[in-house]
Amino acid sequence: MTSRRHLLSALVFSTVSFVSTAHAQTSQAKYSEADVKLAKQAMAAAQNSDLAWDIVASLTTEVGPRPAGSANDAKAVAWGKAKLESLGFDRVWTEAVKVDAWIRVSGQAEIVAPYPQKLAVAALGNSISTPAKGITAEIAYYENYEQLKNDTSDRAKGRIVFIDGVFPRSRDGKGYGQGVMARFRGAVEAGKHGAVAILIRSVGSDRDRLAHTGAMRYDEKIAKPIPAAAVSTSDAAMIARQVKSGKPVKVALNLQNQFKKGMTSANVLAEIRGSEKPEQVVVIGGHLDSWDLGTGAIDDGAGVAITVAALKAVKDLGVRPKRTIRVVMFANEENGLDGGNGYAEVHGKEKHQLAGESDLGSGAVYRFSAGADEAAQPWLRAIGEVIAPLGIEYVAETEHGGSDIGPLVNKYRHPLAALSQDATEYFDYHHTANDTLDKIDPKTLKQNVSAWAAVVWLAAQADADFGPAPKKQN
Amino acid sequence: MTSRRHLLSALVFSTVSFVSTAHAQTSQAKYSEADVKLAKQAMAAAQNSDLAWDIVASLTTEVGPRPAGSANDAKAVAWGKAKLESLGFDRVWTEAVKVDAWIRVSGQAEIVAPYPQKLAVAALGNSISTPAKGITAEIAYYENYEQLKNDTSDRAKGRIVFIDGVFPRSRDGKGYGQGVMARFRGAVEAGKHGAVAILIRSVGSDRDRLAHTGAMRYDEKIAKPIPAAAVSTSDAAMIARQVKSGKPVKVALNLQNQFKKGMTSANVLAEIRGSEKPEQVVVIGGHLDSWDLGTGAIDDGAGVAITVAALKAVKDLGVRPKRTIRVVMFANEENGLDGGNGYAEVHGKEKHQLAGESDLGSGAVYRFSAGADEAAQPWLRAIGEVIAPLGIEYVAETEHGGSDIGPLVNKYRHPLAALSQDATEYFDYHHTANDTLDKIDPKTLKQNVSAWAAVVWLAAQADADFGPAPKKQN
Repeated sequence: MTSRRHLLSALVFSTVSFVSTAHAQTSQAKYSEADVKLAKQAMAAAQNSDLAWDIVASLTTEVGPRPAGSANDAKAVAWGKAKLESLGFDRVWTEAVKVDAWIRVSGQAEIVAPYPQKLAVAALGNSISTPAKGITAEIAYYENYEQLKNDTSDRAKGRIVFIDGVFPRSRDGKGYGQGVMARFRGAVEAGKHGAVAILIRSVGSDRDRLAHTGAMRYDEKIAKPIPAAAVSTSDAAMIARQVKSGKPVKVALNLQNQFKKGMTSANVLAEIRGSEKPEQVVVIGGHLDSWDLGTGAIDDGAGVAITVAALKAVKDLGVRPKRTIRVVMFANEENGLDGGNGYAEVHGKEKHQLAGESDLGSGAVYRFSAGADEAAQPWLRAIGEVIAPLGIEYVAETEHGGSDIGPLVNKYRHPLAALSQDATEYFDYHHTANDTLDKIDPKTLKQNVSAWAAVVWLAAQADADFGPAPKKQN
Repeated sequence: MTSRRHLLSALVFSTVSFVSTAHAQTSQAKYSEADVKLAKQAMAAAQNSDLAWDIVASLTTEVGPRPAGSANDAKAVAWGKAKLESLGFDRVWTEAVKVDAWIRVSGQAEIVAPYPQKLAVAALGNSISTPAKGITAEIAYYENYEQLKNDTSDRAKGRIVFIDGVFPRSRDGKGYGQGVMARFRGAVEAGKHGAVAILIRSVGSDRDRLAHTGAMRYDEKIAKPIPAAAVSTSDAAMIARQVKSGKPVKVALNLQNQFKKGMTSANVLAEIRGSEKPEQVVVIGGHLDSWDLGTGAIDDGAGVAITVAALKAVKDLGVRPKRTIRVVMFANEENGLDGGNGYAEVHGKEKHQLAGESDLGSGAVYRFSAGADEAAQPWLRAIGEVIAPLGIEYVAETEHGGSDIGPLVNKYRHPLAALSQDATEYFDYHHTANDTLDKIDPKTLKQNVSAWAAVVWLAAQADADFGPAPKKQN
């Protein structure tokens, strides 16, 4: 999961409050008994299948880290195509996507005064390098991004800005929005204040000695680019304690990174063709790329596995859906959203009945919501009733369904579905070396597959069109 | 905490079962009301003091990692002496201890076939280096140390032995004994089987991408030394999955380490002189050295802080104890037990009323036990009654009280006291980069200080001699 989604979500969370729980009223939708029975059959099959686990185990073990534009990214595309072909869908194909590759070469940081200590550090995605010999400078400490923004003094000048700030754990990960401001925009703010580099406390809810990377951007109209990195939460606490000693805290930072612009990656797609309205599409997916530090298990091997396995559960019903159901493994979500933009460019004008993405790990789904036309409401509520036994509540409206479907929703106003996942542990591991297969719970993974299988099947069978989305989404 | 303690504990746990809960009977000890009141006063003061926290924060922040014989080890000794002097004890001094330094320079490992993946690795303490260009060889997989030991085939020959095996989490950390066999003795067994190197799954109960180091030893009478390292539990699972693919798994390993024999470190000591029997000593302590990866917060900054703060709580009573109470910051527990051996050499012939060590982190104490003369039993039980409100049960006998007091107990049969700590989380962080201040719970840290303050005060006041220990201990 990249920053943009939550930058935007944070704004949404803070200004919009129309989300309401669905009333317990009788559904007006007329799903046939057969369709509901088939939905339940797909759900049950998903609960008894290890397919999603096998997919994410295969991807993380056989490919591993796969940042956009890397050799492993190409390997992942080949893996994805082969995996989808092995599952026997009607059509499997790739669509080329241009990506700019950012490559981490090395990164070290240490406090050199007053009390020398090594720091666990990771350059942020897109950070420039330091000079080869590194940068050594005093720390200018800020409690949070706002404090830096509001600083009218010159104390950051010639220094390494350090932005602290604890990211509280929560089921919906809502603290992420605030933390991401420091990561995504910190270098611009620090550069504006004359800093020579920026370090941030990792945007993570853990206390592990592993730094969280993630995308950042420069804005050369505002400030000259400066190197940017995150230290682990433990090391952030170390910096804060040394700052509290009242003595000047000096840090030596060395980051070496490379850029390769104009590389080629691809979205990988598969679909089951609809029997009655094949030109209308229900699309779900996850993103195939990952950051380079871990093996991309929770971000987003899980989402790829969940959505592919959901499509397979529908295929295995042996009954062709009325509309086409498509799964997409999106390219370069993390560092450019190129796959999501590319999909919208190619497919934005096709009629989409519903679009959804799984990109928040493998925690249990607790909420189903959608951004769809009024006519879709009874059908969505009916879907909610079918998946309620999985512990999922139906909520009438949402504004966000995943970064990669953002362009589709924003530009073309296609309707979206969201299955909100329990993200309590997600931000312990997100964007770190700790994003590995052992962080996935096979049981909740199955629950996710089960829910998506029912949602896509029933969305494809509805008499009503679910679109367009009621207002500008995302 | 080093390996030896648990190697021995494991044997003890498996063969001895005489440990029994004390009967709820009236104590026959005649502690004066004044002495009990003072014990409770010290306990309450400890519960309201941040001293232990301040000590471990100071040590981990201002010194950090302090492996025996390193520059930071010398810094830690100076820090310890200054800290004890600042607390106003009767006497503060150091006693030189010879140590052999082992220095980690660098370590990398990666799977190169069938599916290339980086591995989070750490050389084990005392491991020799690989050749400068590293070692690349096929993995010979063993489920556990026993399987390697019992292997009569030649499949390890010319290969890198990998020993797997999950370490289950528990309150008393009893799984550690089994895991430590692979770490401490694995290189000898693997060498005997003709292996070119050994990798083990980290002896840890976590799922973090951080390897657990710890002491290992060679036995050149049995096998030629080979490089030895641990991979993180996540990476061990990766290796196991690739092995399961049935394809040969090749690993490239590069470990560079240095040895500096005959360095000088020191035990750091302080005491409150006894008023009636100053030649009789109650001694407690922790070890000052740590492994190099973390900052030595739970292992064993916590133990140092707990025991020093306990001595300070007794000092602050303003009443001189009958016997001398001494605290020791032991040198090089981790990689040679030189401080414990040195203390026994210098002080073994002094009459010790009781010896104890805190070296299992900062988890809450749940049990008080001792290895002491029959005459001490009613007094020990009385102590148990005083500390029972802290949630501590009294158990009549124990065989182990900490590595550093082992030599004192084994060779001189001085009595020992043990305050068993909840180690449920301890082995998540033990011997890793994750051993940092944020893993210490300030509340349970105070509970530890409180318990030790009462134990040492009351041991010093007892009419009965607690020694000698009833049988060979440790």
